[in-house]
Amino acid sequence: MPLLKSWVASANSANHPFPLNNLPYGVFSTGEDEPRCGVAIGDMILDMAAAEAEGLVALTDYPLFDVPYWNDLMEEGPAVWAALRERLTALLSKGSKEQEAVEPLLVPMAEATLHMPLVVSEYTDFYAGRQHAQNMGAILRGSPDLPANWLHIPIGYNGRASSVVVSGTPIHRPNGQTKAPDAEMPSFGPSKRLDIELEMGAIVGTGSEFGQPITVDEADAMIFGYVLLNDWSARDIQGWEYQPLGPFQGKAFGTSISPWIVTAAALEPFRAPTPPREKELLPYLKGSRDGLYDIELEVLMQPEGADRASVIARTNYSRMYYSAAEQLCHHAIGGCAMNAGDLLGSGTISGPERGEFGSLMELSWAGREPFTLETGETRGFIEDGDTLTLRGNARGDGYTIGFGDCTGQILPAKAWG
Amino acid sequence: MPLLKSWVASANSANHPFPLNNLPYGVFSTGEDEPRCGVAIGDMILDMAAAEAEGLVALTDYPLFDVPYWNDLMEEGPAVWAALRERLTALLSKGSKEQEAVEPLLVPMAEATLHMPLVVSEYTDFYAGRQHAQNMGAILRGSPDLPANWLHIPIGYNGRASSVVVSGTPIHRPNGQTKAPDAEMPSFGPSKRLDIELEMGAIVGTGSEFGQPITVDEADAMIFGYVLLNDWSARDIQGWEYQPLGPFQGKAFGTSISPWIVTAAALEPFRAPTPPREKELLPYLKGSRDGLYDIELEVLMQPEGADRASVIARTNYSRMYYSAAEQLCHHAIGGCAMNAGDLLGSGTISGPERGEFGSLMELSWAGREPFTLETGETRGFIEDGDTLTLRGNARGDGYTIGFGDCTGQILPAKAWG
Repeated sequence: MPLLKSWVASANSANHPFPLNNLPYGVFSTGEDEPRCGVAIGDMILDMAAAEAEGLVALTDYPLFDVPYWNDLMEEGPAVWAALRERLTALLSKGSKEQEAVEPLLVPMAEATLHMPLVVSEYTDFYAGRQHAQNMGAILRGSPDLPANWLHIPIGYNGRASSVVVSGTPIHRPNGQTKAPDAEMPSFGPSKRLDIELEMGAIVGTGSEFGQPITVDEADAMIFGYVLLNDWSARDIQGWEYQPLGPFQGKAFGTSISPWIVTAAALEPFRAPTPPREKELLPYLKGSRDGLYDIELEVLMQPEGADRASVIARTNYSRMYYSAAEQLCHHAIGGCAMNAGDLLGSGTISGPERGEFGSLMELSWAGREPFTLETGETRGFIEDGDTLTLRGNARGDGYTIGFGDCTGQILPAKAWG
Repeated sequence: MPLLKSWVASANSANHPFPLNNLPYGVFSTGEDEPRCGVAIGDMILDMAAAEAEGLVALTDYPLFDVPYWNDLMEEGPAVWAALRERLTALLSKGSKEQEAVEPLLVPMAEATLHMPLVVSEYTDFYAGRQHAQNMGAILRGSPDLPANWLHIPIGYNGRASSVVVSGTPIHRPNGQTKAPDAEMPSFGPSKRLDIELEMGAIVGTGSEFGQPITVDEADAMIFGYVLLNDWSARDIQGWEYQPLGPFQGKAFGTSISPWIVTAAALEPFRAPTPPREKELLPYLKGSRDGLYDIELEVLMQPEGADRASVIARTNYSRMYYSAAEQLCHHAIGGCAMNAGDLLGSGTISGPERGEFGSLMELSWAGREPFTLETGETRGFIEDGDTLTLRGNARGDGYTIGFGDCTGQILPAKAWG
C-alpha cells in the first residue's frame, strides 16, 4: 500500500508519523476545554466531538466521542471500528467533498495537550522477549537458560492499571523496601536501580465472557490497537520482593504509554511472523495469522540540562517470541473475562546484540558495565532528572506509521514520614 | 457494646447475622427491578434507592443509591460514611418515629436476588497467613521455612478484578496448561487440583494519589469494609506457571466474595492485634491501631446430592501476621494510586492445627492425606458438583456480626476447541 494522500498537507510526507494511512486515536484538550476524542492527521488533530456534533461522523444513534477515552468506540466492536476508519479516510482524503466542512474542526497539535487515550480496565504485563529472558537469567541467576515453562507459556503477570499514565507525566523515583545481599536486615528508601522496559502495549477492544475460553484467532480480532509502553522498573525493590509471588511494588510506581492508539487496521500491512518454535506449542496457542508487527523501536536518554538525547537502543517488535494474540488467548483460556480497555504489555523487547537491549539492566549488565551517552556522561541506571523516551515507526512504501513519543522524566523520590 | 434493638423483630436475635449493630451494604433486585443499593436488617433489606427517593436519607445534593454498587458512597469519604450509619441506626432503632415511613421500603431478603455489592476497581491478593506460608513451603519445597522476605514485607501480587464474582455464581473448572513432574511436555485440559483459599477481602473506600506514599494509620482510615473472599485456585496450573512472575491463570477463573460489605465501623468492637513480630518491621509499616479483627471463620463442603454440608475447617481472621492496613500501606508506598473499590485479599487464613487450615491443599496435604466428610465421602481436591461455602461471624455481647455466606458450586470444565 502506498502513501494515501490527504488534503492536510503536513500528512503527505514519507517520514511524518501521522499520514492518512495511520489515523491514530487520542484524547486532547486546548485551553480550558474538556478533554475529548481526537484523531491525528499530519500536524493537526481532528476534533471528533465536534465532527460528531456537526453530523460529519454518525456511526451510532448516541454520541461516542465527547468523552475523554476511546472505550465507548471499542465497545461497539470491529464492524463499527472499520466503518469509522472508512469514514475518516473519506473525510480527510485529497479531493474530499467535505474538506470545507472538516477544515474548521482541525486543531493544531502544537496547541493541544494530550491525555490518556483510554481508561485502562486492567493491565497485564508479559515476558515474551526471549533475548530479554535469557539476559535476565544470565544477570540474575548466572545462566541464560530459560525458565522450564518459557517455551510453552506466554508468561505474564497482572500489573496495576492505576499506575498507567500518558507520555509526558513525570514519574517520582519510588521509595521501597530493599535488601543488600550482605545486609542482615532490609532497609527503606528511594530505589537505587531505576530502569525502563521497552514494550509494546496491545489494547483489548472487545471483551470475552467470564468462563469462556477463546482461540488465538478470536483474540487477534479482539485487539483494537497498540501503543508504546515503558514499564518503569525498580530493580532493587523487585529483586527483594518478587519471590514467591512475582513483581509488585517494583513495577507499581508508573507505566507510561504513548498518547496515540495506533489501530490494528493501520498496522495490518506490517504483520510479521513469530520466530520458529523451538518446542511445538500446545494446540490452544496456535493461530492462523502472523501475530507480530514489523515496528522499528528506539530508546533515547537525555540527562537534565543535556543539549540532546542519545539513542541508547534500537530494536524491532518482530523480535518477540509470542504475539499479543497468543498472550490474550492464554490470558482468557481458563475463563478469565477480558474487557474493552484491557492493556497487555508485550514484555521487554531486546534483540540479540547489546545495542538492541530494551532495558538499562541489560544495556549496562546490571550496572557493572555502564554505557556512555553522546554527551559523554555514563549511566548504569536512571539518575534523577533523566528523561527516557521510546519511539516506534512502521516503515511502509513511501509512508511511516508512527506512535508519537512515549516519554517521561524521573523526579527525585518524595519524602516519606 | 450490647445488642442494639430494632423495630425489625428478626434483627433482635443474638445469633442473627444482621442486627442493627451490623447494617451491611449490598446490592439487590426483586423480580424485574433494576439492581440497587440495599442495607440488611434482620431478614429484610432496606431499599436505599427508595429511602433516598422518599427523602429519608439525604446525605448529598445528588443521589447515591439508585445504582448497582456502593462505590459512589465510598467516594464521599469517611464523614459521609459515618453520617449514613448514624442515620440508618436512627431510622431502624426501636422507637424510631420514622418506622411507619420506613416499613414499606423493606423487602424480604428471601425474595431478593443479591448482586455484586461494588465495582471492583482492582484486585490484589496477599500472602499474610504465616501458617499457610509455612504449610505451602513444607508441601511444595519440603521445608516450612518462610521466604527470606516474608517477615519484612506483606507479600502480595495483583489479581484479576474481572474474575471477582458474587457468592452463588457457579464457577467452571478451568482449562489450562499443566505439566506432570515426570512428563517431558506440558498438556492442556481441565485442572485436576482445584482448591479454595479462605480469605477476608478489605475494600478500599478512599483513594490515594499517584506518586504519594501513605502511612499505616492513613491506610486504616481508607478501608471502607470487609467481605469474605474465596480465591479459587487451580494448583496444577499455578504450579507450572508461577515461576518466575507469580500466579496468573491458576487464579484467574474466579474469586467469590460474600454479598454484604460489613463496614469497618461495624467491626470496630472486634479489633485484634497482629501477633508479636519475630523481626521488627521497618518504620513505614508501623501503625498505632490494632489492625486485625476477631472474626470466626468456617469452611463448608457439600458434594452434589449430599444431604448436608460438612464443616472442613474452622479458624479466625486474627490469626494473620499482617493487617489489611499494613498491606494497603505497603501497596501504596512506592506511589501506586489506590482507588475506591480496590479489593485486597488477606491471603489464606490458616490456624496452627490441621482442622484450622484454609485450603484443601493444606487440609489434604496436597491430596496425599484425603479428609472425610460427614457424609462419608473423602476429598483431596474439589470434584465437579461440590459446593464450597465460607462463613464468618464476629461475636459480640449478645449479638453477632455476620457476613452472609460466600458460596460457589464447581461446574465441569467447558469444552475447548
